[in-house]
Amino acid sequence: MTFDPFTAPLSAVHVGFTGNRIDRDDRIRRDPETLWAMTMDPTARWLVLDDLRPLARATADSVELAWVRRSEAPRGDTVFLGVDAEGTPRFAVAGSAAGLDGEPMDARALATRLSGDQAGLVAQARSLVDWHLRHGFCAACGGQTKLDKGGYERDCTACGAEHFPRTDPVAIMLSIDVANDRCLLGRQPRFPKGFLSALAGFVEPGESFEEAVARELYEEAGVRTGRVRYVASQPWPFPSSLMMGAFAEATSTDIRIDETELEEVVWMSRDDVRSALAGQGPFAAPPPLAIAHTLLKAWIDL
Amino acid sequence: MTFDPFTAPLSAVHVGFTGNRIDRDDRIRRDPETLWAMTMDPTARWLVLDDLRPLARATADSVELAWVRRSEAPRGDTVFLGVDAEGTPRFAVAGSAAGLDGEPMDARALATRLSGDQAGLVAQARSLVDWHLRHGFCAACGGQTKLDKGGYERDCTACGAEHFPRTDPVAIMLSIDVANDRCLLGRQPRFPKGFLSALAGFVEPGESFEEAVARELYEEAGVRTGRVRYVASQPWPFPSSLMMGAFAEATSTDIRIDETELEEVVWMSRDDVRSALAGQGPFAAPPPLAIAHTLLKAWIDL
Repeated sequence: MTFDPFTAPLSAVHVGFTGNRIDRDDRIRRDPETLWAMTMDPTARWLVLDDLRPLARATADSVELAWVRRSEAPRGDTVFLGVDAEGTPRFAVAGSAAGLDGEPMDARALATRLSGDQAGLVAQARSLVDWHLRHGFCAACGGQTKLDKGGYERDCTACGAEHFPRTDPVAIMLSIDVANDRCLLGRQPRFPKGFLSALAGFVEPGESFEEAVARELYEEAGVRTGRVRYVASQPWPFPSSLMMGAFAEATSTDIRIDETELEEVVWMSRDDVRSALAGQGPFAAPPPLAIAHTLLKAWIDL
Repeated sequence: MTFDPFTAPLSAVHVGFTGNRIDRDDRIRRDPETLWAMTMDPTARWLVLDDLRPLARATADSVELAWVRRSEAPRGDTVFLGVDAEGTPRFAVAGSAAGLDGEPMDARALATRLSGDQAGLVAQARSLVDWHLRHGFCAACGGQTKLDKGGYERDCTACGAEHFPRTDPVAIMLSIDVANDRCLLGRQPRFPKGFLSALAGFVEPGESFEEAVARELYEEAGVRTGRVRYVASQPWPFPSSLMMGAFAEATSTDIRIDETELEEVVWMSRDDVRSALAGQGPFAAPPPLAIAHTLLKAWIDL
């Protein structure tokens, strides 16, 4: 019998941006008095995002988030991240980091060098701060909105509508040609030459994750899908995706590329994927921060 | 060795609202000329949603969606659902169904009596139509927005910002006490007495699905989580959830209820769940349309 990647045990997988250990404690968000006390707590610390870049301090061999006191943080819509293991309340706010000790860093580059716990905080802070920056008005009536519930809600000052942060589920998948032990990879026009990754697309209204996997593979590559095996998920704060990773059983293997989405789609052998993940070609693989890397690693480790 | 619900094979599961077979064909959405031709096609049919209730025709023992011609459909923001297996373009629009042949029906009650294929269309139509009704204005600037891409986008007429339909991922899970072969169920204040279902909550920015499962179980019931096993997903168009169902390994079993969310949380034995799904008590179980039912069925069938 052929080896079956849809039932074989999965090894434990590393997933970028996961591991955030902060206690988000929604009871605090719901209670304005407790939230105010947290804000005024002298141990409380703020993460400043300047043009969505978190303030950090980097040396040649390490990097850390540069948390500041309330008195140092810019004024603006403030998000309660939660309380850490030491009992320190943590917040995030958008604004200029000029004059503060540290440098604003690209969130993706930063997350690559941080522990999962810290990268998870960056994901939480960046998605929420960005959402507030782009939702100052009510989609229902055009009125002005204001922050509520510690940053997990915006309320319309005109019609009273309540708005909640977006989290956009994305299906990202390796179509697997089981008989030939190959997986399907593609290159978007914006990717560098030689780079290949898993195909992906947003889950649409009225479909399950599994249906989105099958639809995207057919739309982008003309490949039909049988079984779908969920593997893992990750937050991806650019700006607010929830990446849901899967293996998809290919029930056809002829490729028909949607050239508006992809420049190249290829079947790649397990040996080539193993070599690419080791940095030895024949293609450039996605970095460990990306769940596409997790999927490829999970597949070759089956 | 104890039986392990986190590695035992899963039986095939039925999931409500899945099975939509329409071809959403995003190439048509992107091409205004083709979309216009589809709209003018004499075979094209519209689903009218009156106060979000799809028009349907019911008899004592059957029900069907009542599709109308373009000339009969109300004017308004029109969503392209796709092309069905017979090549018929299908659309949805909000408006009064007065004078049309059929009755507007509650979408949930209707979906219970439709095939998965038709229920999936109801999910797609209801989520999209509702999104248009509540997003006439730009969240970024307060300007007016207009429908684009066959209903899968709204563009701001003032600042040009592009907005996309929301799909809100929800974690819904059975915490499993493996040693005692029990699962955790709860009752929200709005549920009828005697009704119990799986615990659930929205996935938040900056967390994975697995992290959301663990957070919700701790917040709502005080129960800690080890392994998380994804089971299935479903669209839930009230208004736009993507329900993601899982088993969660309980690593603690003492219950501490969040009384703002739940009135009752209990550990329930496999025998009691089996009996309830057969309609024989000791509690009222969620109906087959709900993924909570799918999870309970998947657990007792392990």
